[in-house]
Amino acid sequence: MSAEHHFTLYSTVRGPNGWKVAMVLEELGLSYQTIYLDFSKDEHHSPEYLKYNPNGRIPTLIDHKNGDFAIWESDAILVYLAEKYDPEGKFSVKDFEGRMQQLQWLFFQASGQGPYYGQAAHFLRYHSEHIPSAIERYQKEVLRVLGVLDGVLSKREWLVGDKCTIADLSFVSWNVSATMFLLKDYPGFDLAKDFPSTYRQVQSSRYAGLPLTEPSRWHASMLAREKVAKVLATQFKMLNI
Amino acid sequence: MSAEHHFTLYSTVRGPNGWKVAMVLEELGLSYQTIYLDFSKDEHHSPEYLKYNPNGRIPTLIDHKNGDFAIWESDAILVYLAEKYDPEGKFSVKDFEGRMQQLQWLFFQASGQGPYYGQAAHFLRYHSEHIPSAIERYQKEVLRVLGVLDGVLSKREWLVGDKCTIADLSFVSWNVSATMFLLKDYPGFDLAKDFPSTYRQVQSSRYAGLPLTEPSRWHASMLAREKVAKVLATQFKMLNI
Repeated sequence: MSAEHHFTLYSTVRGPNGWKVAMVLEELGLSYQTIYLDFSKDEHHSPEYLKYNPNGRIPTLIDHKNGDFAIWESDAILVYLAEKYDPEGKFSVKDFEGRMQQLQWLFFQASGQGPYYGQAAHFLRYHSEHIPSAIERYQKEVLRVLGVLDGVLSKREWLVGDKCTIADLSFVSWNVSATMFLLKDYPGFDLAKDFPSTYRQVQSSRYAGLPLTEPSRWHASMLAREKVAKVLATQFKMLNI
Repeated sequence: MSAEHHFTLYSTVRGPNGWKVAMVLEELGLSYQTIYLDFSKDEHHSPEYLKYNPNGRIPTLIDHKNGDFAIWESDAILVYLAEKYDPEGKFSVKDFEGRMQQLQWLFFQASGQGPYYGQAAHFLRYHSEHIPSAIERYQKEVLRVLGVLDGVLSKREWLVGDKCTIADLSFVSWNVSATMFLLKDYPGFDLAKDFPSTYRQVQSSRYAGLPLTEPSRWHASMLAREKVAKVLATQFKMLNI
């Protein structure tokens, strides 16, 4: 355990959930070191790691300024960071009902976006056989989730309150996967046309270098944030994209 | 909207997530009416319902004593109930680190248990074609999740703190599905043998009437609770089980 950094973040290069936590750590200006577990070497199942995270998945965050408190599940980590290290509410709402709505969107990300986008990735890339009906099932679910977000974001700028919060930021890394990989070859799919509020085309030199062809007001405004762009640039570099 | 009850719970008969909320409402002694949406009539996509829940899924809870505040995502609802209506911590922990661990387990339920158990159910029952490799993938994931729980529960009685909390209760309804349906015919599967801490055989007349063949210390102790058993009995009656 390093005492030089405030946090140690266990992550992995492939897979959006660790990068999501890095984005919020960066936005809050908190110092951290990242340990990238090599899943091909089964490092996520080592006894040392399972002590922190019995689920054997990433991310896990260790807070060295809180007695090496360990917490896993990416969205629980975002709430931990917001409650303990964002007292002024720069990236989180603080009133009770707002906090509950923020949590509702985080649970929608955790249960509705992550797992289904992840199944699309699995059947597109990793499954033992090619099953078009399974690929179609999960690509359609990605579209459905984007549709839910688009409907809400056509009436308001951010999911909760009047600013970018952890609820919004939690969706970025998986939506990057959707636009770059999961829906790339989906027949007739046109992000800008189909989901104008989520994916309206925005010109911005700050994220122009990112390989996203159809950014949106909401999604693009988060990609254009310096800290988010920095984290994505790190990921793309490590993935050789 | 009824003013006679404290809450209106939108649920559906088939599907565990609404029953999960009913269990916690019952345990906290809160009054509610349940509206069961008929998915075959697309009632979850009616404009009236989508006003409350743009995701078009269940459950949604309306709190008539809080200006008809509407909240969806079952685990966000459990946190709402714990924070607003369980000030003494009968079913929730209240210290900061404990609350964060409680949230971590709720996110594991929401992202690790619900969606994967749900995919097992989908490919076992509803998919357009029979795909053994997909069924196997999700049955194995159900077993993996049970294994994670079993490992933790071999060292402690409850997931967080020293009592049954919303974190524990959140797993009951999907684990009922696992024991009754999802793993029933899985080759060589023996719950009591494979997951002794989660599924140790317990004799108890209180839940003997429930059609579960392999209850456990943890799971069975929750099934044996009067309020949980009452909710399950209602569900089984409505499902004609």
